[in-house]
Amino acid sequence: MSDQNTKILRGRTLTFHDVPNGPDEKHTFSFEEDGALLIEGGKIIARGPFADIAADAPDGTQIVDHRPHLILPGFIDTHIHFPQAQVIASWADQLLDWLNDYTFPAELKFADKHHADRIAKGFYDALLANGTTTAVAYCSSHPNSVDAYFEEAERRGMMMLGGKTMMDRNAPADLCDTAQSSYDDSKALLEKWHQNGRARYVITPRFAITSSPEQLDAAGRLLKEHPDCHLQTHINENHNEIAYTRELYPDAAHYLGVYESFGLLGPKTLLGHCIHMTGHELHVMRETGSVAVFCPTSNLFLGSGLFDKSGIEGAGIKTAVATDVGGGTNYSMLRTLDEGYKILQLQRQRMHPLTSFYWATLGNADALSLSDRIGTLDPGTDADIVVLNARATEPMALRMQTIETLSEELFLLQTLGDDRCVAETYVAGTACKPA
Amino acid sequence: MSDQNTKILRGRTLTFHDVPNGPDEKHTFSFEEDGALLIEGGKIIARGPFADIAADAPDGTQIVDHRPHLILPGFIDTHIHFPQAQVIASWADQLLDWLNDYTFPAELKFADKHHADRIAKGFYDALLANGTTTAVAYCSSHPNSVDAYFEEAERRGMMMLGGKTMMDRNAPADLCDTAQSSYDDSKALLEKWHQNGRARYVITPRFAITSSPEQLDAAGRLLKEHPDCHLQTHINENHNEIAYTRELYPDAAHYLGVYESFGLLGPKTLLGHCIHMTGHELHVMRETGSVAVFCPTSNLFLGSGLFDKSGIEGAGIKTAVATDVGGGTNYSMLRTLDEGYKILQLQRQRMHPLTSFYWATLGNADALSLSDRIGTLDPGTDADIVVLNARATEPMALRMQTIETLSEELFLLQTLGDDRCVAETYVAGTACKPA
Repeated sequence: MSDQNTKILRGRTLTFHDVPNGPDEKHTFSFEEDGALLIEGGKIIARGPFADIAADAPDGTQIVDHRPHLILPGFIDTHIHFPQAQVIASWADQLLDWLNDYTFPAELKFADKHHADRIAKGFYDALLANGTTTAVAYCSSHPNSVDAYFEEAERRGMMMLGGKTMMDRNAPADLCDTAQSSYDDSKALLEKWHQNGRARYVITPRFAITSSPEQLDAAGRLLKEHPDCHLQTHINENHNEIAYTRELYPDAAHYLGVYESFGLLGPKTLLGHCIHMTGHELHVMRETGSVAVFCPTSNLFLGSGLFDKSGIEGAGIKTAVATDVGGGTNYSMLRTLDEGYKILQLQRQRMHPLTSFYWATLGNADALSLSDRIGTLDPGTDADIVVLNARATEPMALRMQTIETLSEELFLLQTLGDDRCVAETYVAGTACKPA
Repeated sequence: MSDQNTKILRGRTLTFHDVPNGPDEKHTFSFEEDGALLIEGGKIIARGPFADIAADAPDGTQIVDHRPHLILPGFIDTHIHFPQAQVIASWADQLLDWLNDYTFPAELKFADKHHADRIAKGFYDALLANGTTTAVAYCSSHPNSVDAYFEEAERRGMMMLGGKTMMDRNAPADLCDTAQSSYDDSKALLEKWHQNGRARYVITPRFAITSSPEQLDAAGRLLKEHPDCHLQTHINENHNEIAYTRELYPDAAHYLGVYESFGLLGPKTLLGHCIHMTGHELHVMRETGSVAVFCPTSNLFLGSGLFDKSGIEGAGIKTAVATDVGGGTNYSMLRTLDEGYKILQLQRQRMHPLTSFYWATLGNADALSLSDRIGTLDPGTDADIVVLNARATEPMALRMQTIETLSEELFLLQTLGDDRCVAETYVAGTACKPA
């Protein structure tokens, strides 16, 4: 479905090269007030001032004029649950109740491929409506759900990461696999989908509570056999979860020690939450290069606690940011950045708006080791793009009357923005925001 | 402009009688699946099952069918800053920086009546778009701004409360009044607007930092002369604010002691924030019947801290909930309830969805001593109404497919909802949601 035609997108282009701590760090980003991208065959071919791009383009090249909107790399969501589209906004208590009361029952329905196919459509519509062009998802424990997930991604031409949730205990019987079946199913799915077009397979043990030692061992073997795959799991989200994990794995030095002992850590390992970390766990994360994934709306919604960004980054650990739908309450990375900002504010860690937008684009791409492909508007990368309108609602338009800088505009988008601010989403060069 | 015609609103009516802590407390609310209101002359004349209301209504009465939407009393916002519509989402640090860097410069513009008139239109549009039919606002220190505020409310037929901000120090000279001029101006405005139609005047010393003792004394005299007026101010929002207040008023036992000593406390006194309260302050609040106003989005945005609802209510103090735009980040009471829920979750104070919607309607009306007029669908009260659609966006519609109870639906509205969920807003019986 990819649009192979050459085209020029004209608008206010913004892309990052490194962590920007403020507008004076000019080397960390490129912003062009009348900028343009030349797109061809799903790739960005050139970026620069519109006048230059237009002069160099073939005669008659289509020009899509997005002025005065901003053109950024598409948002990347590094932690989301595909089977939880109908769990979002469930009035549950904290993590373990929420899993038992709402999440597991919803995931059970994904045994039915037709259900999974139907939810996949709504799920991808929601991502694209919010300008998210890549996400990393937990599917359900049913291989069906992984097929539904990647089939729909393929139809839309999206670079999506995900995998079958491995879980063999402490959950309804019909959701549980076994150590061996989870290994076999994951391996078969991995061989079917990993690097199949834009798909990337992620080895996905849910978390220590729902995996036996045998299953975590199987996950570790799979990762060793396929070191180019990602692995994702959860850690240190909630005090009861931690206590129960320590009971289940009494020999581990700490929660992270469980994952470490089965060889699950490394630079392609994504650890969701990382709220209640011990000093030694931070040390192990740095040594292994594992990534800490911050899920702001979820952490507030479930009352889990406050992610210590500066402490974690200060310990030399890469961080990513994510929605965590359906524990998270919104598909929008703008809403996610807003609540992330607020969580950091409560800890006196004020995040600059340039840093926010870096995080949701290049920062997340870098955390996924995919910054050569996505999260940037650099020539040669995939044309996954979001177009943002900071005047999308009346209160925003009123506020924009007094806004003078790019940083203020980004902050307005983050603070008041939602899917209405997404004027267009491009996947591999094709406009595809749902109507 | 009020629509004097008789009409019937048909829909799923929900109104509260007392604090509901759950769906089993049936005496605390009335919910009718096929309900109706009979409206005439801006008032609710009758409420009941549609069949009964229709049978009793005069032949040919207009029927507005809002099914399957919910019909609730209009939302009430108990703390908002009219001159901060263009301050919202400013990237400032904490409270005192935010005031100096963004807020005071914006408020200075309200010396110009034309500016105030123009902003008033956007301000009221935003309220009505979000289903808010009554708000309690700080105007700027310029009497002009109070006229602009109440004139626009009058044009729209709204019950609005507000007053001139009294501030005679620690702010730009052009924003400062004097103790005497603030008394004179407030008194003149009070005589002009209080009980003029639906307007209610609120004596409004900003907070102790920007008022000299002489000015707080003047505010106290004004309240004594007009005990039927409300008084509003701020307290215990931020540690630096508290420390500076203690320096300015070294003789006071605590922050609240400042206000107490000038006679500013009582059951019509609205105290914004109340985050960092001492035990003795809680005691004084209960003794005087003063109201604590929770401003969730603002408290997170400025990193002020976590409002202790159960501690404050447990001390016998009435609470209200509010947006606090522009320190707050959204005009929507739905967004406000969502962030309020999250702040309470962080403190293990989980709020039931029925409690949330009680709070934003009858609870706030009761905190304002206005529950005989607004915040309810009871016959004899003003027909200020909001109509809510829980399927307003695709992710909400997808979630609604699995929702079975009213409580779950309310929670979805609170968690994912925004102005798009407001299908209609009625002020004194007239439909008036901006296009």
